[in-house]
Amino acid sequence: MANKHPYLTTHEGKLYLTDQEKGLRTALEIQDILFDETSPYQHIMIVDTVLFGRALILDGIVQTTEKEGFIYNEMISHMPLALHPKAEDILIIGGGDLGVAREVLKYPFVRRVDMVEIDERVVYASRQYLPEVAAPEDDRLHLYFEDGATFAAQKEAAYDVIIVDAADPIGPAAVLFEHPFYLALERALREDGVMAAQSDSPIHHIDVGKRTYQSLKSLFPIVYPYFTTVPAYPSGWWMFTLASKHYDLLRPLDPGINTRFVNDAMLRASLAVPHLFAEKLFS
Amino acid sequence: MANKHPYLTTHEGKLYLTDQEKGLRTALEIQDILFDETSPYQHIMIVDTVLFGRALILDGIVQTTEKEGFIYNEMISHMPLALHPKAEDILIIGGGDLGVAREVLKYPFVRRVDMVEIDERVVYASRQYLPEVAAPEDDRLHLYFEDGATFAAQKEAAYDVIIVDAADPIGPAAVLFEHPFYLALERALREDGVMAAQSDSPIHHIDVGKRTYQSLKSLFPIVYPYFTTVPAYPSGWWMFTLASKHYDLLRPLDPGINTRFVNDAMLRASLAVPHLFAEKLFS
Repeated sequence: MANKHPYLTTHEGKLYLTDQEKGLRTALEIQDILFDETSPYQHIMIVDTVLFGRALILDGIVQTTEKEGFIYNEMISHMPLALHPKAEDILIIGGGDLGVAREVLKYPFVRRVDMVEIDERVVYASRQYLPEVAAPEDDRLHLYFEDGATFAAQKEAAYDVIIVDAADPIGPAAVLFEHPFYLALERALREDGVMAAQSDSPIHHIDVGKRTYQSLKSLFPIVYPYFTTVPAYPSGWWMFTLASKHYDLLRPLDPGINTRFVNDAMLRASLAVPHLFAEKLFS
Repeated sequence: MANKHPYLTTHEGKLYLTDQEKGLRTALEIQDILFDETSPYQHIMIVDTVLFGRALILDGIVQTTEKEGFIYNEMISHMPLALHPKAEDILIIGGGDLGVAREVLKYPFVRRVDMVEIDERVVYASRQYLPEVAAPEDDRLHLYFEDGATFAAQKEAAYDVIIVDAADPIGPAAVLFEHPFYLALERALREDGVMAAQSDSPIHHIDVGKRTYQSLKSLFPIVYPYFTTVPAYPSGWWMFTLASKHYDLLRPLDPGINTRFVNDAMLRASLAVPHLFAEKLFS
């Protein structure tokens, strides 16, 4: 099984998931492969890693893990929900591991969550093998297994908050990082709508962050990059982009929202932009 | 040359510096080895990496790099200097790459910097091969090539700011993470003194951070953990500890202090403690 995919390597009798960036190889030790299937869209694995527990891997790239996936999911979810005072209708693009859905559904005022994930098998695998990540059953959650860009293009003033939890901008998710898609999201949002998008690694791919920031800046009056550190991603640093039509003041995290990473100080702190990113993003 | 040291590995004809944490191997591609010497204390290399430019490596561990070393050096230096309003006498323990000295010497009110580094050859190699990291010549800088703990134990109320830029708490630097050393630093500081210490990875070694925090908390009235992300260190997250006898309010970064990473927002942001670290550090 290990030989079919170049990102599964062995070293001294141990199995590793290997990520190759320019000049950097990162290898995560795997104890067990729990799910291994090639869907029409991608190679899906659920593996048990020594460091981060169970992990969802798509085409060899770590998407989320049991032990630290909540960092990414809390940051991408609670930031727009700290900006919008009462988000009732939510759209999630991507997010097949259901980790963003889990965070969003914590808010009692959320009435409906539409989640559009192209690959049904990712949701199936996550529900089966990542119960600590995936949202529990909830009548408010509506799943659509289709193309997120096409789905969003059909909506107008339908959502209070949109969260783009896309895979990396290579392969099927590439369209989710382009200007026409952001334009569709702007139209799909209500007049006081807020959106957040993952914007890749500012160390390895700040061009992605810059394009996202500048695209959204041309469409929304209020746009902020924000950052956190995701231990399972190479070099740690990760960027998100927050865009808002109207609201520009973070509310405190709702009491009763139980989080493991995010708190008010972390949300505010994540908006600080180090010089080294600012000079690239804002130029 | 590559075979003498287990952390120098080859893969598909390329040379890598390999770091092995539990469950995670990180391999940094090396284009050239510029300096390679075993001193009485450790194996010192200056290498040219694809990702981060030139790097100082001690016993196989990345200490600092040309392209991102300023993140660590600015965070450990400017935080205590944003707390102390007029630090004239500074002690640096460790810091052989002279990167902390470079940051500290930017302040015109700094009168004297004592730097105590056990290994003269680290300073030699850094001056020769890391001119972008190492402090330029400065009459205010006084170098002592001896044991930092012994040096500090002989001082009383002599410094305004002490910065502990120690290597990892294995081998010769282990003593720089123990309570008797922090007690000596408390005595070596003036009555309104401030100190900062590197406190290792909160992902891989939060026990180090916890011991440092709790040790300093028993000696100083004002103690804060603070965090940043160092791309060259495994999993990114890095912790520092700030301890102060008197001052408890960050001043804005001095105008005229030229930085590449730190700004006022980043200093303040770095004091935010995510739940996942707080529950371990403060318990």
